[in-house]
Amino acid sequence: MVPGSVYEEILREDLDISKQLNDSQLEKAVRKVLQYSVKTNKPTFRNQLYGGMDPYGLAGAWVAEAFNTSQYTFEVAPVFTLIEIKVLEHVLKLFGIPNGDGIFSPGGSISMLYALVAARFKAFPEIKRKGMRGLPELVIFTSEDSHYSILKAAHWLGFGTENVKVIKTNDSGQMKSSELETSLQQELALGRHPVMVNATAGTTVLGAIDELETMAAICEKYGVWMHVDACWGGSLMLSKKLRSKLKGIERANSISWNPHKMMGAPLQCSVFLLREKGLLHEANAAAAQYLFQQDKFYDVSYDTGDKSIQCGRKIDAFKLWMIWKARGDIGLSNLTDHVMEIAEFCIQTVARKEGFRLVSAHIQCSNVCFWYIPTFMRNQEETESWWDTMHKITPKIKEQLTLRSQAMIAYSPLRQRKNFFRLAFTFHPVLEEKHVLEILQAIEKCGEMITGSML
Amino acid sequence: MVPGSVYEEILREDLDISKQLNDSQLEKAVRKVLQYSVKTNKPTFRNQLYGGMDPYGLAGAWVAEAFNTSQYTFEVAPVFTLIEIKVLEHVLKLFGIPNGDGIFSPGGSISMLYALVAARFKAFPEIKRKGMRGLPELVIFTSEDSHYSILKAAHWLGFGTENVKVIKTNDSGQMKSSELETSLQQELALGRHPVMVNATAGTTVLGAIDELETMAAICEKYGVWMHVDACWGGSLMLSKKLRSKLKGIERANSISWNPHKMMGAPLQCSVFLLREKGLLHEANAAAAQYLFQQDKFYDVSYDTGDKSIQCGRKIDAFKLWMIWKARGDIGLSNLTDHVMEIAEFCIQTVARKEGFRLVSAHIQCSNVCFWYIPTFMRNQEETESWWDTMHKITPKIKEQLTLRSQAMIAYSPLRQRKNFFRLAFTFHPVLEEKHVLEILQAIEKCGEMITGSML
Repeated sequence: MVPGSVYEEILREDLDISKQLNDSQLEKAVRKVLQYSVKTNKPTFRNQLYGGMDPYGLAGAWVAEAFNTSQYTFEVAPVFTLIEIKVLEHVLKLFGIPNGDGIFSPGGSISMLYALVAARFKAFPEIKRKGMRGLPELVIFTSEDSHYSILKAAHWLGFGTENVKVIKTNDSGQMKSSELETSLQQELALGRHPVMVNATAGTTVLGAIDELETMAAICEKYGVWMHVDACWGGSLMLSKKLRSKLKGIERANSISWNPHKMMGAPLQCSVFLLREKGLLHEANAAAAQYLFQQDKFYDVSYDTGDKSIQCGRKIDAFKLWMIWKARGDIGLSNLTDHVMEIAEFCIQTVARKEGFRLVSAHIQCSNVCFWYIPTFMRNQEETESWWDTMHKITPKIKEQLTLRSQAMIAYSPLRQRKNFFRLAFTFHPVLEEKHVLEILQAIEKCGEMITGSML
Repeated sequence: MVPGSVYEEILREDLDISKQLNDSQLEKAVRKVLQYSVKTNKPTFRNQLYGGMDPYGLAGAWVAEAFNTSQYTFEVAPVFTLIEIKVLEHVLKLFGIPNGDGIFSPGGSISMLYALVAARFKAFPEIKRKGMRGLPELVIFTSEDSHYSILKAAHWLGFGTENVKVIKTNDSGQMKSSELETSLQQELALGRHPVMVNATAGTTVLGAIDELETMAAICEKYGVWMHVDACWGGSLMLSKKLRSKLKGIERANSISWNPHKMMGAPLQCSVFLLREKGLLHEANAAAAQYLFQQDKFYDVSYDTGDKSIQCGRKIDAFKLWMIWKARGDIGLSNLTDHVMEIAEFCIQTVARKEGFRLVSAHIQCSNVCFWYIPTFMRNQEETESWWDTMHKITPKIKEQLTLRSQAMIAYSPLRQRKNFFRLAFTFHPVLEEKHVLEILQAIEKCGEMITGSML
């Protein structure tokens, strides 16, 4: 990869859209675009919480694209509507809320909006007509390691980011449940209304799973809506063996899960689930006469689109249906177990390997976080200035890895911790131990190229 | 098409996802799904504001799916990022705001959320931190024929639907600008703060284009944010000859346009544009450390994702880029002219054809709205009860058309008007006059099958 301005230079003519090309010129331009694009399906692409894609999912995406329709009414998407219903039923059962409701949304951040809207509407149905001004002061609770989408949602929906109460996490990245309870009590004492607690099952960086059972008990005690952001970790529910890690999720009022992350469905494939049937429709319906006519000749209860904030909506459920049909419950369970075995292997290797140091040895999702300490940095007192150097070394190693096309790996700081690597494993491509070793060796090799003068 | 419950019966085994299938069984199930699905690419599918799809757009969608990545950072989508930038530049120029900013969003309804968030943030930047409670009473203005997404947005964003002031339209479906000004004055006198005026360029049913120049002058006079919902009609900007229909759009603060409607890009392909550069980022940024690291080795101004409410975001711009490369500005201009010629032909034919009656003879977008009056209903006094019968006849004709797989055409009531048909023409498939005649003949034939006892 080279800087953006260089790409712009190389691709100048290809990027321009004012001039018409014939088919062979267009093919040439497309090939060039792809040549310079990142190959996210390679085993060494570990930069995001998505990685290689399930080929059945891709087939599903292609079919869905070709049949270009929208998920709002039964008449234009009869089978796709039923497929969304059936897939949601299956997923609801899997997550322990078999009588619930759900919808496919364009990503986890939009699911977060759905969750907050549902929680707020349940507490104050007058919000829909009257808006936020007449309501008491509303507060939201989340952990400091939770996804940033809750801040964006707090702005958009009119809560304000200051009304998101950020609860500390423990060393493994889990919300400190006792601090949640303390904060709830404080806010209640101040006369504020706690509208939602956002638990995370699989934080973005460490992969931490909050103590869902304890949090559920707290939410029930104070009568607060419990949302579980399981966008990343929700895929563990697919495993018979591992789903107990998310025990308590079945007590949530709402859940978000992104099969386009660990499970390998093509982007976008996001599910928003909620316990109470009918609430989604009641909260979001606008009953547009031109679209949701009540005098249609078929049973209009199959028109599910008014539950949605969107009007036109992609048929994302079909990709998941394809994957599930091809893999079955058992196949998906095995893939989940395998991905966690690989993550376990990685964490054990990192723990033993010279120069590597784990950020947290407590594995929850398939995230493995660590520093690589080059030889010239070892056996020194780890002062603040030493850590400042480490903070620069991690991005520098990543630069080398990227420029040499050896691997693409995320890094991040986290609270007091300086920049470290995060490897996050996904179902596809199905990695073996040798791939993990290759990635770690590449890090080691590029790490040893770093010298003090480069920083 | 048959009722949902019958579909469920026919497809029971195919819908089920608990059992694993081998590839040939899966292929069989997929073929069955497709057999019972609506073929939206047929010329006779005129049920929505999308129709057949541009094949170059489909190629673009397939490539984008295969390269499965997210539009948030340059490092994972270097070329796709540049493509989004270049396409937006071209579109901004086309809409007359060359120095503006923009983003691809998952549909027009989400673009409506973007518009309201931007307008509100511009007026009250403290909203981001503090929420809606401390703000004055905010009001939004829209026409009675505008899209329902503004009501959903008013709920979600905390304004409340009661604070959407609905302005009457004239017979052609355009907002009465003088009533807008009166309403603005009334609200100001009541101490309320007008946060946005939503003009529509191409209403959903009639295809009306509001008087954009007059509305722009009013918005400028009162210092109110002007948004133009050009999701449907924005495609007219592609035509050299026809873009003057949207004169005044270049004075808007924000614009939404859905190339997945008239232009035939595959769903979803939606553009949100705004005049002020930087505002989108300022309003929406959350500066997540794990994703938008500032110590990356490349120029991070190419990381455009923090402008978005989404985190992961599909590379929808690529479809539009493919279409534009293949068609060129001139090719797209010609397609626009053609679609309007076909709509003109349709409206003239309907005006002349016995038994047909136009709802509005004033064509603005490619919508043609009309009733078909079966022979047994003609030459009678058009009493309230006669109209009540017509209200039932239109859906009944649609039922016949659909069950006989002859055509799929939208119908709707509108204000005092009873159910009528809406034909809306799109770029693809490229229709000829004979197709229009076939559709009208099918309506006539099915209309003549209707008898009083069926209603």
